[in-house]
Amino acid sequence: MKMPVIIAFDVMGSEHGPSEIVRGAVALTSEASNVHAVLVGDQSQVDSALASLRYHAERISVHHVSDWIAQGEVPLAAVDAKPEASVCVAARLVREGDAHAVVSVGHPGAFVAACQKLLPRLPNVDRIALGGVWPTATTRGQNADPFCLLLDVGAGAEASGEELATFALMGSCFARLVSRNSEPKVALLANGAETLGEAQRITEAKRRLEMSPGINFIGIIEGMDIPRGTADVVVCDGLVGNVCLKVLEGTSETVVALAGSAARSGLPWRIGLQVLARGIEGIKGSLALHEYAGAPILGLEGVLMKVHPSSSARSIANAGKVAERAVRHELIQEMRRQLTAS
Amino acid sequence: MKMPVIIAFDVMGSEHGPSEIVRGAVALTSEASNVHAVLVGDQSQVDSALASLRYHAERISVHHVSDWIAQGEVPLAAVDAKPEASVCVAARLVREGDAHAVVSVGHPGAFVAACQKLLPRLPNVDRIALGGVWPTATTRGQNADPFCLLLDVGAGAEASGEELATFALMGSCFARLVSRNSEPKVALLANGAETLGEAQRITEAKRRLEMSPGINFIGIIEGMDIPRGTADVVVCDGLVGNVCLKVLEGTSETVVALAGSAARSGLPWRIGLQVLARGIEGIKGSLALHEYAGAPILGLEGVLMKVHPSSSARSIANAGKVAERAVRHELIQEMRRQLTAS
Repeated sequence: MKMPVIIAFDVMGSEHGPSEIVRGAVALTSEASNVHAVLVGDQSQVDSALASLRYHAERISVHHVSDWIAQGEVPLAAVDAKPEASVCVAARLVREGDAHAVVSVGHPGAFVAACQKLLPRLPNVDRIALGGVWPTATTRGQNADPFCLLLDVGAGAEASGEELATFALMGSCFARLVSRNSEPKVALLANGAETLGEAQRITEAKRRLEMSPGINFIGIIEGMDIPRGTADVVVCDGLVGNVCLKVLEGTSETVVALAGSAARSGLPWRIGLQVLARGIEGIKGSLALHEYAGAPILGLEGVLMKVHPSSSARSIANAGKVAERAVRHELIQEMRRQLTAS
Repeated sequence: MKMPVIIAFDVMGSEHGPSEIVRGAVALTSEASNVHAVLVGDQSQVDSALASLRYHAERISVHHVSDWIAQGEVPLAAVDAKPEASVCVAARLVREGDAHAVVSVGHPGAFVAACQKLLPRLPNVDRIALGGVWPTATTRGQNADPFCLLLDVGAGAEASGEELATFALMGSCFARLVSRNSEPKVALLANGAETLGEAQRITEAKRRLEMSPGINFIGIIEGMDIPRGTADVVVCDGLVGNVCLKVLEGTSETVVALAGSAARSGLPWRIGLQVLARGIEGIKGSLALHEYAGAPILGLEGVLMKVHPSSSARSIANAGKVAERAVRHELIQEMRRQLTAS
């Protein structure tokens, strides 16, 4: 029998309270008998969430904390001010070897800040990256995964060419081992060939990636290539990645007022109807972001999965499965090997 | 009677040939009696486009060229290799005082490269910017304009903090004088407050803009704020702006295959239906981009309007009207004044 994979769930800090996350962790342990879930949160809140559920008691434990970081707080300051916040405690469980992985639904910036503060960096990693998932028109890997991995989406804002190349290497490892995509296509995201100039960091990252034998580097792609699914791993700095993800979110929430004003000003929609029909499908995809938004922090000594704060129990259980797979397939060991190979 | 505004139309380089652009220029001169259009293109192609149209002969002239730059060409190299290409000739007409403005439907990068090579920069401008328009949920200014101005979208890739602040100043002038928005809201585009870190260039641009008395600077906005219409002028470097615009284009073209694969993998769409309904309206807005995509090159001694290569005659005429307004309201003089004021 396989050794259990111990996953710490940071169950605090969601606007909706811990019950959905607890349900997700319970669902995971019911489906994956070799997972043990440590629920890091307020004991009474977690107990009351557990009370209505059927679960395997030997696969669930509660690690009580009385503090946590709320969505609106300033990440770095909050982590410094609250060493006993759930997200800090969960990261320390990994550092001390008491858990293999963390799944957090809390404040994403606080999760990154806590992990960055409390966990050692992998060798040759100057900057860590937060991944994001993006629905694409194509699927990839053994699981026919309809999402590509975009990184960085906000662990930082800037990245040098060398750091972008490291993001590419780590993202490629994740896609290969965890998303079961034997030869993931890795690309740099930048402005198109019809524009003038190439950013220095892109030129430098491209030079490095073209020399990296272990990566299936397909070159520079443009913004429209992300939803098309041209690449499986899309690499950019945190400012670009964060802006892109939010443009996608913002586009799908753009309100009816726009259509009203456009109709008044007589803009011609006619020729757009065909594109619209296809666009609707694209938007459908973007909705899945909230349901399936498990994405890794890469660059630290630990399997670390962020899930969107408004995620369902289903997507929390899915993120747990991804974390379990990352542990079983020795993602960290493989990244360490790759990072020290060159 | 007002002096005529002379607009050079670079009618070559569209995939669809010059006929739609010629129709647009003719429509403009029919509606605006004080505009004279110089059609810069192959005489025989232009003549055959004009043959089927009714127009005021005294408001149209043809400037024959036998060369032009096609969409696939490398912009800088093409401009160097083809000094008599239509776009270069149009830029020289402005430089020599034979035209007040250029409207181009050709290769956008070649348009930027030709103007940059052939026209002087405005004082204190180290880097020019290409604008893009983005449909928003709100309207602005006297014309209830449903688009905000995004710049740079690809005149370059990088920009320093000082250069971003200059983009902001120029974009604000354009919005005020041309879009008739008396106090346009100007913002810097960057990663959100939930992420870690702020790019140095953003910090520096923010510092400068907070000290600029002539600009209504509202601070940093996130990607989702663009479609919401939080700002009227959105400032970023060319890599970020170009990627954003293309993400918007790519999202609206995302293909049906995605919905198919998502259905197979059982992702839950149900809760998304409400968001979807609103998203459709957002996509409708993005379609207008192709119909209304007149956007300026800012930073040079000339009124320079780029229109999307697949634009209709209507949007070409609209771009011409924008150019006419920029000339009448002395956009260049006002930008020069602002750029030398501090």
